[in-house]
Amino acid sequence: MCPSCNGDSSSATHVERSDMVGVENSRIGRPAHAANGINGHANGSANSVNGSSSRPVQRINPYAPRASDFLNNVSNFKIIESTLREGEQFANAFFDTKTKIAIAKALDAFGVEYIELTSPAASEQSRLDCEAICKLGLRSKILTHIRCHMDDARIAVETGVDGVDVVIGTSSFLREFSHGKDMTYITKTAIEVINFVKSKGIEVRFSTEDSFRSDLVDLLSIYQTVDKIGVNRVGIADTVGCANPRQVYELVRTLRGVVACDIEIHLHNDTGMAIANAYCALEAGATHIDTSVLGIGERVGITPLGGLVACLYAAAPEYVKAKYNLPMLREIENLVAEAVEVNVPFMNPITGYCAFTHKAGIHAKAILNNPSTYEILKPEDFGLTRYVAIGHRLTGWNAVKSRVEQLALTLTDDQIKDVTSKIKELADVRTQSLDDVDTILRVYHSGIQSGELAIGQKEAFDRLLREHRATSQSFERSEPIAAAA
Amino acid sequence: MCPSCNGDSSSATHVERSDMVGVENSRIGRPAHAANGINGHANGSANSVNGSSSRPVQRINPYAPRASDFLNNVSNFKIIESTLREGEQFANAFFDTKTKIAIAKALDAFGVEYIELTSPAASEQSRLDCEAICKLGLRSKILTHIRCHMDDARIAVETGVDGVDVVIGTSSFLREFSHGKDMTYITKTAIEVINFVKSKGIEVRFSTEDSFRSDLVDLLSIYQTVDKIGVNRVGIADTVGCANPRQVYELVRTLRGVVACDIEIHLHNDTGMAIANAYCALEAGATHIDTSVLGIGERVGITPLGGLVACLYAAAPEYVKAKYNLPMLREIENLVAEAVEVNVPFMNPITGYCAFTHKAGIHAKAILNNPSTYEILKPEDFGLTRYVAIGHRLTGWNAVKSRVEQLALTLTDDQIKDVTSKIKELADVRTQSLDDVDTILRVYHSGIQSGELAIGQKEAFDRLLREHRATSQSFERSEPIAAAA
Repeated sequence: MCPSCNGDSSSATHVERSDMVGVENSRIGRPAHAANGINGHANGSANSVNGSSSRPVQRINPYAPRASDFLNNVSNFKIIESTLREGEQFANAFFDTKTKIAIAKALDAFGVEYIELTSPAASEQSRLDCEAICKLGLRSKILTHIRCHMDDARIAVETGVDGVDVVIGTSSFLREFSHGKDMTYITKTAIEVINFVKSKGIEVRFSTEDSFRSDLVDLLSIYQTVDKIGVNRVGIADTVGCANPRQVYELVRTLRGVVACDIEIHLHNDTGMAIANAYCALEAGATHIDTSVLGIGERVGITPLGGLVACLYAAAPEYVKAKYNLPMLREIENLVAEAVEVNVPFMNPITGYCAFTHKAGIHAKAILNNPSTYEILKPEDFGLTRYVAIGHRLTGWNAVKSRVEQLALTLTDDQIKDVTSKIKELADVRTQSLDDVDTILRVYHSGIQSGELAIGQKEAFDRLLREHRATSQSFERSEPIAAAA
Repeated sequence: MCPSCNGDSSSATHVERSDMVGVENSRIGRPAHAANGINGHANGSANSVNGSSSRPVQRINPYAPRASDFLNNVSNFKIIESTLREGEQFANAFFDTKTKIAIAKALDAFGVEYIELTSPAASEQSRLDCEAICKLGLRSKILTHIRCHMDDARIAVETGVDGVDVVIGTSSFLREFSHGKDMTYITKTAIEVINFVKSKGIEVRFSTEDSFRSDLVDLLSIYQTVDKIGVNRVGIADTVGCANPRQVYELVRTLRGVVACDIEIHLHNDTGMAIANAYCALEAGATHIDTSVLGIGERVGITPLGGLVACLYAAAPEYVKAKYNLPMLREIENLVAEAVEVNVPFMNPITGYCAFTHKAGIHAKAILNNPSTYEILKPEDFGLTRYVAIGHRLTGWNAVKSRVEQLALTLTDDQIKDVTSKIKELADVRTQSLDDVDTILRVYHSGIQSGELAIGQKEAFDRLLREHRATSQSFERSEPIAAAA
């Protein structure tokens, strides 16, 4: 931690300020999202402190925002959705024209700011599809992604795209084993291509490839050069998925001091850090994040759209809700999953089938009291619902009590603890469905009401359950319990 | 970035040192893993620099290791594998005794340092299973995880475990909506439980729950207290999955300055950042990371074992290879996936089915020249193989050339470019299998050899392909091409 960032509180007067509300939501003690809806920026506090003195002022609170927080774009970013470019590089992907158009329309309806398409130089059909999507009149801007080469640039600018994303490898690995060009040649070509695209009046981005294994001076030098000639964005790419969060933060922050243009980042997910790396890039001042639906792309792919939305929603829920049509997320993921013949991963953020299922007894109790105890994402904001599992051996009596109340049964806490021990005993052999649990609760309740049953009378309860089974079709479902033992 | 960390190079003599090899592998310019096998610590350079002067020395290179890097435990950590505890809280999980034992044995064979089991207080079968696993005589230490309560502790210490993991919620959310206890009560109970477990001569860990939404002073205070009475480890838990990487780094670093004992971290994955958060915790000085196989646990689960191994292998390959039986990873993931009835996600690090599949033309070319260009994980270290896809419209002639050489055909580069354009044309309609590609290459080659074909004679090539189809059963596979158009 930088010593100049946290002031010495003993040297400054302690002041209670009503506009220092952000202070309680500090990074360490209580993150911004602990208090729903307040984002990470403690607006106003820095200005008001600075206003009281002409020399640097010691901060009065060690958890006050730091200078670096003002670079933070966690609630000020754009998504470049690359399912139709990076995603086409996924092993299973083969998108026909109809599928491409369906995906582009869905992404546009979701609200992504940019849609990136495969280079029209890749194949004739790629070129035709690019033209077709440009003609759809979507709100999202359409980009295409080309090698840093005049041949490709000439084809790209004729398709009707709103911008061209140019890329070239700068790492020693790529310079030696891929294109074999030196930095002088790379710089010269980049300038030619950028000037050409700009002359057509459309956006141009220049990105290096494998940026995290490129020489830092080479990188900064070429970014500074292209910034000076008016490129719209520079891009950093972790092409091999080797970067880690603090490394991403530092490179983006360094670059933020070198160029005036926007900064885009493209992150592969080989070690599972692409979402976190994107988040740290925004904290360091990046402006545009590349995503694909479910993260599909080369190898294990890139930052997934849904995962990025999850972490940014957690940081700045109101901003993200206002910007994107969140309930569409599941539909888009299903569309793409079907097109490339994969399943939505069970542990996918937000849409994984158990993302809002609570199981442990202590979790279930708290969730029933207040969902914010164990949920930083509100399922209803994504058109989804929460589920509290209670028919398993980790269950707790508070969760069971909630079900008792839902069923409008009248039982004391001691009675609920008693019936819970029976549920745990049965669930130790086989997980009980909600129907099973409801039956157990109803039989217990009627036994108590009729006086046939009291707390602790295990054998009487077992007899009542057997009798219920004999008379009721509905209890048939629980019958395998005995057999499974 | 802390200004005191990067010295002013102009005020120090420039010295070329052979032992400064770590310098080139700086965090920003070239990460450690860019040069295979060298880990992130630039051993020796700091000591040798300090040896030359009694006052703080200005570093001669801005990319030299920083003071904070010496907290880094990225190549000095232990895994607490919690599939049999956290994993049991996964919605689908119901492990019978036999399955628990199979998973425990597999984790032991893989080499995890600790295996954590469900509380024996959860149910009678949980207690019996805990005892059974303790009697297996595994190399991994066996832990069980209990609420901070003397009733649970008394049961736990009788099971034969090597240690007890104690947890209690400290966030305002949990104190209000879960257990309703204040910090005085929490501290008093913690001391009682810790002293009791220690009196039995086994390890004890004390963890807070929902640590990132707890008051920092409360947290540090209780950790300091339990450290003083001799707890073996303190644990930080991101129970709701709200933490981000730099926040984790800062909390762990702060705690590292407060306690002398080990530091464990438990991270939920609700926003997809659990792997990256674990990595940053190690960078800040954490010593133990909680994982589960495939990340299974409450909701979308916690840091997955495979993903954590991937990012740590990328940072310190030799250390990770020496420590764990990496080729077993796939087997363990399949075992657990089957037990909880899920699929291994298609984008799983390392074992996702396309993790080593390369598709884009420029990628394929470079991979064929040198796999390190696009791979930071060596598939052979995990008992897996790489695959370069070439029968698609994004293919490139370099990838095709590699296949031509594998088939021992003789074609010039111009001829290969010519046949590649045919492959792209066909793949624009339908992705071509490797068999399809091989057939196209063989027909082209024989046409060239016989003189029936020359570069650019598209119609002649189409005729040869048709003739081949008529005479050869093997070309039947490519027939749907025309129909699909």
